[in-house]
Amino acid sequence: MRIGLLTGGGDCPGLNAAIRAVVKQALGEYGHQVIGFRNGWKGVVDGDVIQLDRSNIRNILPQGGTMLGTARFHPHSAGAMDQVMATFEAERIDAVICIGGDGTLNAASKVAEQGINVIAIPKTIDNDVWGTDLSIGYHTAVNIATEAIDRIHTTAESHNRVMVVEVMGRHAGWIAVASGIAGGAEIVLAPEEPFDIERIVKFLRHRHRAHANFSIVVVAEGAEPAKGSAMDYEVQLGQFGEIIAGAVGERVAHEIQERTGFDTRLTVLGHVQRGGTPTPTDRILGSRFGVAAVDAVTAGKTNVMTALHNEEVVLVPLEDIAGKVKPVPEDLLRVARVLA
Amino acid sequence: MRIGLLTGGGDCPGLNAAIRAVVKQALGEYGHQVIGFRNGWKGVVDGDVIQLDRSNIRNILPQGGTMLGTARFHPHSAGAMDQVMATFEAERIDAVICIGGDGTLNAASKVAEQGINVIAIPKTIDNDVWGTDLSIGYHTAVNIATEAIDRIHTTAESHNRVMVVEVMGRHAGWIAVASGIAGGAEIVLAPEEPFDIERIVKFLRHRHRAHANFSIVVVAEGAEPAKGSAMDYEVQLGQFGEIIAGAVGERVAHEIQERTGFDTRLTVLGHVQRGGTPTPTDRILGSRFGVAAVDAVTAGKTNVMTALHNEEVVLVPLEDIAGKVKPVPEDLLRVARVLA
Amino acid sequence: MRIGLLTGGGDCPGLNAAIRAVVKQALGEYGHQVIGFRNGWKGVVDGDVIQLDRSNIRNILPQGGTMLGTARFHPHSAGAMDQVMATFEAERIDAVICIGGDGTLNAASKVAEQGINVIAIPKTIDNDVWGTDLSIGYHTAVNIATEAIDRIHTTAESHNRVMVVEVMGRHAGWIAVASGIAGGAEIVLAPEEPFDIERIVKFLRHRHRAHANFSIVVVAEGAEPAKGSAMDYEVQLGQFGEIIAGAVGERVAHEIQERTGFDTRLTVLGHVQRGGTPTPTDRILGSRFGVAAVDAVTAGKTNVMTALHNEEVVLVPLEDIAGKVKPVPEDLLRVARVLA
Amino acid sequence: MRIGLLTGGGDCPGLNAAIRAVVKQALGEYGHQVIGFRNGWKGVVDGDVIQLDRSNIRNILPQGGTMLGTARFHPHSAGAMDQVMATFEAERIDAVICIGGDGTLNAASKVAEQGINVIAIPKTIDNDVWGTDLSIGYHTAVNIATEAIDRIHTTAESHNRVMVVEVMGRHAGWIAVASGIAGGAEIVLAPEEPFDIERIVKFLRHRHRAHANFSIVVVAEGAEPAKGSAMDYEVQLGQFGEIIAGAVGERVAHEIQERTGFDTRLTVLGHVQRGGTPTPTDRILGSRFGVAAVDAVTAGKTNVMTALHNEEVVLVPLEDIAGKVKPVPEDLLRVARVLA
Repeated sequence: MRIGLLTGGGDCPGLNAAIRAVVKQALGEYGHQVIGFRNGWKGVVDGDVIQLDRSNIRNILPQGGTMLGTARFHPHSAGAMDQVMATFEAERIDAVICIGGDGTLNAASKVAEQGINVIAIPKTIDNDVWGTDLSIGYHTAVNIATEAIDRIHTTAESHNRVMVVEVMGRHAGWIAVASGIAGGAEIVLAPEEPFDIERIVKFLRHRHRAHANFSIVVVAEGAEPAKGSAMDYEVQLGQFGEIIAGAVGERVAHEIQERTGFDTRLTVLGHVQRGGTPTPTDRILGSRFGVAAVDAVTAGKTNVMTALHNEEVVLVPLEDIAGKVKPVPEDLLRVARVLA
Repeated sequence: MRIGLLTGGGDCPGLNAAIRAVVKQALGEYGHQVIGFRNGWKGVVDGDVIQLDRSNIRNILPQGGTMLGTARFHPHSAGAMDQVMATFEAERIDAVICIGGDGTLNAASKVAEQGINVIAIPKTIDNDVWGTDLSIGYHTAVNIATEAIDRIHTTAESHNRVMVVEVMGRHAGWIAVASGIAGGAEIVLAPEEPFDIERIVKFLRHRHRAHANFSIVVVAEGAEPAKGSAMDYEVQLGQFGEIIAGAVGERVAHEIQERTGFDTRLTVLGHVQRGGTPTPTDRILGSRFGVAAVDAVTAGKTNVMTALHNEEVVLVPLEDIAGKVKPVPEDLLRVARVLA
Repeated sequence: MRIGLLTGGGDCPGLNAAIRAVVKQALGEYGHQVIGFRNGWKGVVDGDVIQLDRSNIRNILPQGGTMLGTARFHPHSAGAMDQVMATFEAERIDAVICIGGDGTLNAASKVAEQGINVIAIPKTIDNDVWGTDLSIGYHTAVNIATEAIDRIHTTAESHNRVMVVEVMGRHAGWIAVASGIAGGAEIVLAPEEPFDIERIVKFLRHRHRAHANFSIVVVAEGAEPAKGSAMDYEVQLGQFGEIIAGAVGERVAHEIQERTGFDTRLTVLGHVQRGGTPTPTDRILGSRFGVAAVDAVTAGKTNVMTALHNEEVVLVPLEDIAGKVKPVPEDLLRVARVLA
Repeated sequence: MRIGLLTGGGDCPGLNAAIRAVVKQALGEYGHQVIGFRNGWKGVVDGDVIQLDRSNIRNILPQGGTMLGTARFHPHSAGAMDQVMATFEAERIDAVICIGGDGTLNAASKVAEQGINVIAIPKTIDNDVWGTDLSIGYHTAVNIATEAIDRIHTTAESHNRVMVVEVMGRHAGWIAVASGIAGGAEIVLAPEEPFDIERIVKFLRHRHRAHANFSIVVVAEGAEPAKGSAMDYEVQLGQFGEIIAGAVGERVAHEIQERTGFDTRLTVLGHVQRGGTPTPTDRILGSRFGVAAVDAVTAGKTNVMTALHNEEVVLVPLEDIAGKVKPVPEDLLRVARVLA
């Protein structure tokens, strides 16, 4: 069998673990061949390929990023589906393993409709892919964000400040909620719960009067004020539909400073959240997903995504996932609230 | 309500997160009182108590260990159940939240039999408590072990050595398997699969002849040779029934060196695996378990253990857990094997 | 003897190590008393004091920030020198140990002019205090910045991007140069060498054409374009004379994107650079400075600053330091250049 | 010019930074060629060479170990000086840059006597090379040891134990003293000061009676009891003259347990101290030494070692170094004592 392999969308830690597992399992267990496409779907369109063997994957397990490169490129939007099919034919690809988030999974569905066998592996630091308990990259992002909050904590306390920390999370607040609980944040703002700036201000005033002289506020980049609340604001998008980093954080920090008079500072974590060596959890998740994807391909199962469900790796149909977002569950949001 | 709180058995990261959550939830949400016992069951017997409030739990979230102290002490074995009951009566305790592993849960059951309302929170870096996907401390231990293997990897490669790393895990090989996969170990020895030294030696010889000049072997302290295999060995226990650190690792390293002639070195991770700042996962787990334990106590549910099941916190009866060990599942053992 | 102790200016890791050493050495070695002032010079003016003993310094060695609190407050500018003297008299202070940067050392000089015995301990993550090889906090900041660059490196490479990272350093580029060398940055912009955006652009174009598809550019917040060069820009200051975080980085990233067409992104590290657990180097430096300051006070040496010179702790007169900035030496700037 | 390059002795973090700097500076600045020898002097004897260019050094800056491999092999002891000279002649080597510790520097001197131009770069985690303030690898080792002590601290405190931590340092106690101060150890045992177990026991008894219930004791592997003191012991050596890991630590832990009755545990850090990603300090040191070595070779200076002196890189004659050990200075030993 000749298996195609690509990574698409934003890079994140754990992709190389998945690539390594796909290659090891495909070559070692089944004797398949693995053809890598460089820079995601763009490499498929351009025919930019590399045959992968043991030497390519040496030492990549602890490395962040993706040794295949990646790009935000959608072949269907770009009107390039014909080139995709042409490359697959030229390379005699029997099935494609696509590691990616929303956009990549969406492209994978379109490709599947053309009769190509597709297996998807979910990755997104936002952790909002439907159908899987975990996506590659999320766990490392939470670690990085928590470490940053730990650092900011000592400054907040030494200077009697309100520190606002903006983290990633456009449609779901997974990173904000997890790092907020782990970092002991007083307030966590997530897209799941539109916020009321007046309640926040009231809470901070009460806290600083009663028993503290500092506070940590973690804001997901996709958090929005409740309709009709005191702060009117809509998330602004960049040219690729991306959220402008810092936009929400700046508004929130500004409002807190103005309304409370407390010395308030903003930190925007930005790109550091998606880079560097993956945590063991992301390495293991990538490894398990890679092995499972090759097992699935070999068993003739296609148009599915590998998923973690109750600690086990399972396969879910691609069509069940499309267009859905996995929100942070209420019980986790509650823990963030009650431990404030 | 007056809630007793103790931590028993070996310390580990994440205990303070649970203590903090118990106190915050009990005082803030319900207006209960929390009475801490120092040094586990020993403090109950001795009447060594401290009333816990917000000031006691300040800044403890990122701290390893337990601010209550802990001890390996079993009141029933020590014939001290009467003092336990006396202290609970003197302190007018309505229910006890016990954070601990095997031994502590066992003691909790004995106490429950005396009519005391008990809620247990599972902790053990070995992750072998039955009935819960995760126990407090395990996740941090895997992180530490993986970081150590990453470090040892560069030495193995620079010196063309076989490096044997002994990690904790007496009855189950969770740390060994997880850190072995995450660290890219060639061989993982876990109690779940008695090993055959001759197969290991054969594998290493083949690998070093074919395409590598170094190898990493991760050994759980409770790993044992298969009965009738070339290496005859039984796990030796210390005076408290503890495994002697390094005993198995030394045997395995010695056999590999002797049989292959490869330069082989042993590292015994030991106590570093159970200390230091908890990972976000352990902080969140401790926080969730602490909140859930207080909710359970308040709702009148007792003789249960908080547990993580399919990402949710649930309660399982203490009697369902007693005497059982949760082994590493076969599919994870297989990933460790196929990625070797 | 009654020794006053304060920390002033921005907080940073290692302050608590110095506080602990002052208290241990003063009480344990000489039997002095130590009176802490809260929130820097503000606490002196307000008479906000705390007598420090062994219990206050428990467990603070690995903690970032300062357990005394700090503030950006200059008693002379605030016309509060009389209150300073009044507090010192009321508390019967024989000498004051001031841990701080430029502003605090300046205030210390003014106080010394009033006849108060002053010993200064230098701290600044910018490392630009004249007369000492190292100031407390710098080393940890370099560690944090390097870790961030390591993370950003994998994203740069995976996405074929130019990543601009803005770090602290208003008058001197120590953090930028050190983290740039350690992180393998292609370009480092420091205040010591006004930059020419056209040369940068030329370098990047050549590099991306010849042998790479990504680059890392580290910019100190105080870096400025050469007079008369293509990019006209002056550093903008905030209301306290502070540099606006991100201002220079944004300009540089924008120019690179516009002039090269390469996909360019900015990360502003901000407050994380000054928080969290100190590195061993900062803990040791703080400890040595604290011990030396108490030794100096006891020996009747005053109006001096503790300094590291050729690995040894020495004392330098406060008057030698005033108004000077310690730039990055040419040989270190050259290493950053030749390893690009 | 054709420059030979090798790394000898035990591996450590920062070697790759030096290799990268040598290659970048030699090729980029001067147009020299760099011939790498694999596995230290062994590769010279065997003629195991690799021509190094930009592609070989890609991404190695943050990697521990040495991409050239290393070995403990002394050509003069092995009677292989003729092969060394033969290889240098066959490869037309104009000068050799040797990165190593005692043994390698010694071999370098022997080679220099044969008329070969030699430049040495000092590396040793023990930091005991005479003539330089810092050697490559030491700084990272201190970081690792301090992190381990931080972890062990929480266990010591939670369990009321004496924790003994054995670190490397055969002839000098640099790692023990630095990590002991940074980790807040109560007692540090270094080869520079033979210890008296009775004084240690007395100190611990007093401390545990007066104000604490735990203690940390850091022991360098080369620490020895004072002659005539209660504990009679000589350091035992392995077959290569190496200290047996754990030997001293075990003796010390045993004596403390026996004499005080306190629950006492030993952790032997071992190989983790010399692996993994280098700290920024080691990366910068390796980079500076590499650049300086190539500058020296080009300027015709030979039979010298690069050294750090008062923050500057200088050259010291090889003959000045031979047979000397750089001990921890008294003022640093004192800080370890007074902060106990």
